[in-house]
Amino acid sequence: MNLEEVAHLPVERFLFILTLILVGSKIFGEIAERIKQPAVLGELVAGVILGGSVLALVPAVSGEVGYNTFHLLAEVGVAILLFEIGLETDLGDLIKVGPTSAIVAVTGVTVPFALGYLAFVTFEKWGVIHFDPRLYTIIAITIGATLTATSVGITARVLSDLNRLHTGEAKIILGAAVIDDVLGLIILGVVSGLIESFEKGSGGTGVSFMEILTIVLKAFGFLFVSIFLGNLIGPRLFGFVDKLRVRGVLLLFAISFAFIYACLANLVGLAPIVGAFAAGLVLRKANQFRAIESSLKPVADFFTPIFFIMIGAAVNVTVFNPFVPANHGILMIAALLFVVAVIGKYVSGYSIFKKNINKSVVGIGMIPRGEVGLIFAQVGLNYKVFNSELFSAVTVMIMLTTFIAPPLLKMKFKDQDENNNNE
Amino acid sequence: MNLEEVAHLPVERFLFILTLILVGSKIFGEIAERIKQPAVLGELVAGVILGGSVLALVPAVSGEVGYNTFHLLAEVGVAILLFEIGLETDLGDLIKVGPTSAIVAVTGVTVPFALGYLAFVTFEKWGVIHFDPRLYTIIAITIGATLTATSVGITARVLSDLNRLHTGEAKIILGAAVIDDVLGLIILGVVSGLIESFEKGSGGTGVSFMEILTIVLKAFGFLFVSIFLGNLIGPRLFGFVDKLRVRGVLLLFAISFAFIYACLANLVGLAPIVGAFAAGLVLRKANQFRAIESSLKPVADFFTPIFFIMIGAAVNVTVFNPFVPANHGILMIAALLFVVAVIGKYVSGYSIFKKNINKSVVGIGMIPRGEVGLIFAQVGLNYKVFNSELFSAVTVMIMLTTFIAPPLLKMKFKDQDENNNNE
Repeated sequence: MNLEEVAHLPVERFLFILTLILVGSKIFGEIAERIKQPAVLGELVAGVILGGSVLALVPAVSGEVGYNTFHLLAEVGVAILLFEIGLETDLGDLIKVGPTSAIVAVTGVTVPFALGYLAFVTFEKWGVIHFDPRLYTIIAITIGATLTATSVGITARVLSDLNRLHTGEAKIILGAAVIDDVLGLIILGVVSGLIESFEKGSGGTGVSFMEILTIVLKAFGFLFVSIFLGNLIGPRLFGFVDKLRVRGVLLLFAISFAFIYACLANLVGLAPIVGAFAAGLVLRKANQFRAIESSLKPVADFFTPIFFIMIGAAVNVTVFNPFVPANHGILMIAALLFVVAVIGKYVSGYSIFKKNINKSVVGIGMIPRGEVGLIFAQVGLNYKVFNSELFSAVTVMIMLTTFIAPPLLKMKFKDQDENNNNE
Repeated sequence: MNLEEVAHLPVERFLFILTLILVGSKIFGEIAERIKQPAVLGELVAGVILGGSVLALVPAVSGEVGYNTFHLLAEVGVAILLFEIGLETDLGDLIKVGPTSAIVAVTGVTVPFALGYLAFVTFEKWGVIHFDPRLYTIIAITIGATLTATSVGITARVLSDLNRLHTGEAKIILGAAVIDDVLGLIILGVVSGLIESFEKGSGGTGVSFMEILTIVLKAFGFLFVSIFLGNLIGPRLFGFVDKLRVRGVLLLFAISFAFIYACLANLVGLAPIVGAFAAGLVLRKANQFRAIESSLKPVADFFTPIFFIMIGAAVNVTVFNPFVPANHGILMIAALLFVVAVIGKYVSGYSIFKKNINKSVVGIGMIPRGEVGLIFAQVGLNYKVFNSELFSAVTVMIMLTTFIAPPLLKMKFKDQDENNNNE
């Protein structure tokens, strides 16, 4: 008989939505592959279709019934994805490309920030946009900050779809994304502080150098301690776990290890996925890592589509309707920001001085803003720095960067393969 | 950086609770196996310890922050468990033991109901308990109804832990549990009707024969159509799915198939797990069933512990404290109901006339009331038929039956093995 349901999301509705997510992601993923695109692009499109502005079958907005549950499952999905990618990544290789990753990350933050700031100031001079003059600087800074984001989830998934995780480009991108998360922490701290002190009218930066130093030390401290201490403890812990005989024990301890790392990363202010990635790097050294990897695969298959569907579901397609006059301004600003966003990250690839590295691949790999960009945009909205039009324009830019990266990466890899064959 | 969390359960807290569930279930499962008990017993104990009345680390009560999310994941867990068990069960064998299962189910419903009713009436005559005289009959009936429940999840898991799913006893128990779910539907309908008409003072049964017939026809109609139509469509559908090449497609379609069956079962009033079990029976006929089974295993390993932890977490250990005088009455009634509950189901095994069937194993397999018993108790509480003491006593009885079955089953199988070796 039925389990009486007193809480808000009934079990049959939950199972039905979950089915739509799983089947939708695979059908559109398959279509994407058939037209020679990465499967993740299909999953994003499936998310748009299932999301709030088209079929409204998946709860896409905070506050909707069941949104929290699906949001949490999406977080598990991206954490397990990055854990899996960590397991496939050699820490030594990552350290070797460390300086290159750092240059890419710093260029990929400063250039988009500067371009975004300048673009906004120029638009204003040309009279393209009109805002409260007292807000110009703060809006320009917040837009610049949003443009600095990098969503490693999207790129990592594309590299995995295309079997390119072991290339030098992939290592540089992954390292740069981790560093970018630390830089993002600083930028978010500074921008929030600036906005707060602007609201108070104090005119200061609102954030002291010491505060920023603390943020950075905590973040790097976590990475250092978790990886180097983890390398000592992790393999021994799993040597012990290997002696247990209850069903599924190795898999569940491995996932729990990743979850604990994700929680700790979150505690120091980093994204949970950075912690999960670090957990993967550590467990790669354990003797059981092949067994962990193979039993993790079906669990990743189950959870990761939820993340990409939820990213797609957040897209509001109604702003793309050209017959609504209010959309014209939004789309024009979005298009200009998009150009700036693409150029800003693309050039970061060309900051590399190494040979044998496909600079375009690295640059394109940094383009998607994904969920990280959405966090910045949300801060802008919460602090009322962005009005709803500007927020929509920024969101459209974020989505375009997220959707453009998978096909561009695929194309670049194809060019590269053809060049190699011709040589 | 952190994903800004506007909804109620923050991601780091969710991951932390999930880690406690996964690690706790495996550690206690391992301890249970070391002391020669089924792993599921350890998981239930871990749930009690993590639950509301001991450490209060897992949300165990409806309304608590995050309860809905964990409840839904628990439902996914038990659905995947029964799907997995369906995949391992041959439909032909199940039909072969059908009549035996039906006898066991009917005996296992009527005897506990009659004993429960009589026990309550006797207690009252002896002056052991005192209630509003107008409520006697309705309380006695509701207690009797609660005693009829069977939680197939617990027994199926024990049989799986002990590698006994392929025995004749397992087939009889699984068939009886499905029939019991249909009988439970009828009893729940009748009891709710009786209580409602009692409240209105009409004195009637409140449920017409036609209403009951409709409930039964819908339930059997679903089972018949889903299994026989499924046998036609299922293997063809998966023949098509096998041609798709995107990662994880077979697994996700199989899980989605089970979820859809669970939703449909729910629509006709049956438990979602009955639908998931039927889906497993159907997909066993698909050519891909070995591949489905092996990739399903890690997903089941992840989700099923959540179900057993949540069952354990619902236990309120404070009522077992003998130093609280109010507990004495509760514990005495609970103990008497427990004896009735065990005897009532145990004899159902002896209604079998077949040879070569271990009747005690079948009888014990029907003992746990688990989540199904809790549903009945909840109905009694919601309609104010049970006061809080009686509800506590009934809950204690349900928990005792749930916890006693795994060790008893293990013991009986051991005796059987020893007898076979001596022969």
